Amino acid sequence: MANTETDRRNRVKRAPDRGVYEREAIYEIVDAALICHVGFVQDGQPFVIPSIHARDGVELLLHGATSSRLIRHVQSGHEVCVAITLLDGLVLARSIYSHSMNYRSAVLFGKGRLIEGNQERMHALEILSDHIMPGRWDDSRKPNEKEFKATAVVSISIESASAKVRTGPPNDDDEDYQLPIWAGVLPIEQRFLDPERDPRLFHGVELPDYIKEYHRKK
Amino acid sequence: MANTETDRRNRVKRAPDRGVYEREAIYEIVDAALICHVGFVQDGQPFVIPSIHARDGVELLLHGATSSRLIRHVQSGHEVCVAITLLDGLVLARSIYSHSMNYRSAVLFGKGRLIEGNQERMHALEILSDHIMPGRWDDSRKPNEKEFKATAVVSISIESASAKVRTGPPNDDDEDYQLPIWAGVLPIEQRFLDPERDPRLFHGVELPDYIKEYHRKK
Repeated sequence: MANTETDRRNRVKRAPDRGVYEREAIYEIVDAALICHVGFVQDGQPFVIPSIHARDGVELLLHGATSSRLIRHVQSGHEVCVAITLLDGLVLARSIYSHSMNYRSAVLFGKGRLIEGNQERMHALEILSDHIMPGRWDDSRKPNEKEFKATAVVSISIESASAKVRTGPPNDDDEDYQLPIWAGVLPIEQRFLDPERDPRLFHGVELPDYIKEYHRKK
Repeated sequence: MANTETDRRNRVKRAPDRGVYEREAIYEIVDAALICHVGFVQDGQPFVIPSIHARDGVELLLHGATSSRLIRHVQSGHEVCVAITLLDGLVLARSIYSHSMNYRSAVLFGKGRLIEGNQERMHALEILSDHIMPGRWDDSRKPNEKEFKATAVVSISIESASAKVRTGPPNDDDEDYQLPIWAGVLPIEQRFLDPERDPRLFHGVELPDYIKEYHRKK
């Protein structure tokens, strides 16, 4: 991945002061998010599909049914664009124009390939599972042959990427600070509520610690 | 918008039992979400950009700087795809294969046009503001001439759309229900924390009720 380099695709045109090209800052956003939005082109038509993802070093993993449109397209090596957005707050300025949101957003560009080897594919599925919930893979029933055959994993080599981050209070025009209008930030948080047991849960199975203590890194 | 009709673009291929084509169900998802992801094609390259949006009847409004790549592209009448995803929970099944998420997801297809008339454009900005926070438009300083000139609004005519919704506990294979593995749902909620006052807030301005009582319809 181009580290701090910019090309035609990843240059942040609007609010360039919010643009972040450093690899680690981009990875933090990718790793914190539970889902991404994958964009691709088919017969000139744009498609955007939500998906889970996981980062494996400088590659981004996606999985799906072998028959899925997204997976089939990505495995053919076409260009894809993956957007990952974390919403942190509504920024309420005095002027409508200066309203904004606090967010962390990453956009990645690259081409995909199908992960072919069985061992590599099983490992990729474990990475995807670990990304969503560490500990779950070891606790679950692993894929049987039929399930494994029905699941494809693609790896997107991240060729270029950028992030945009906004934090902090509103930025109003100097003269607007005297207006008697409430201004500030309404913070947004993704919260996990108490786990809901499956009504058909096998008698006596206790909630494991990795679910009890589940959280995402910010 | 095609109401319950499907075409090549909006047919839900995977898990077709989760596909929802009814107009009202799609609109509920669009209206509940704070942001969308807009996909478009430029020189054969897919782009996905997060944006705020608002629905105006059968049209979807987006806004941005007149110079923004997204806005300039959409106003030229190219095809766009808008994805809106609300995450409701992690579905923890006994088998890794049956893991899923609870979510409400809508994908819209259509072409955009620039909103030209000043009155129509100002009204569209008000609809966008109301979508994010009802009451805020009336309370804020309205756009001045310079700000208004710098802001473009595009309207996307929703030609086709679909939604996918998953709710409820995991669906495991019959024989897996006897496994002593914890299964259930970890619900996810978007929560708004206590408003943070701008440090430069004009003395004596109280928090308005519409912020105090702010919430999103589910």
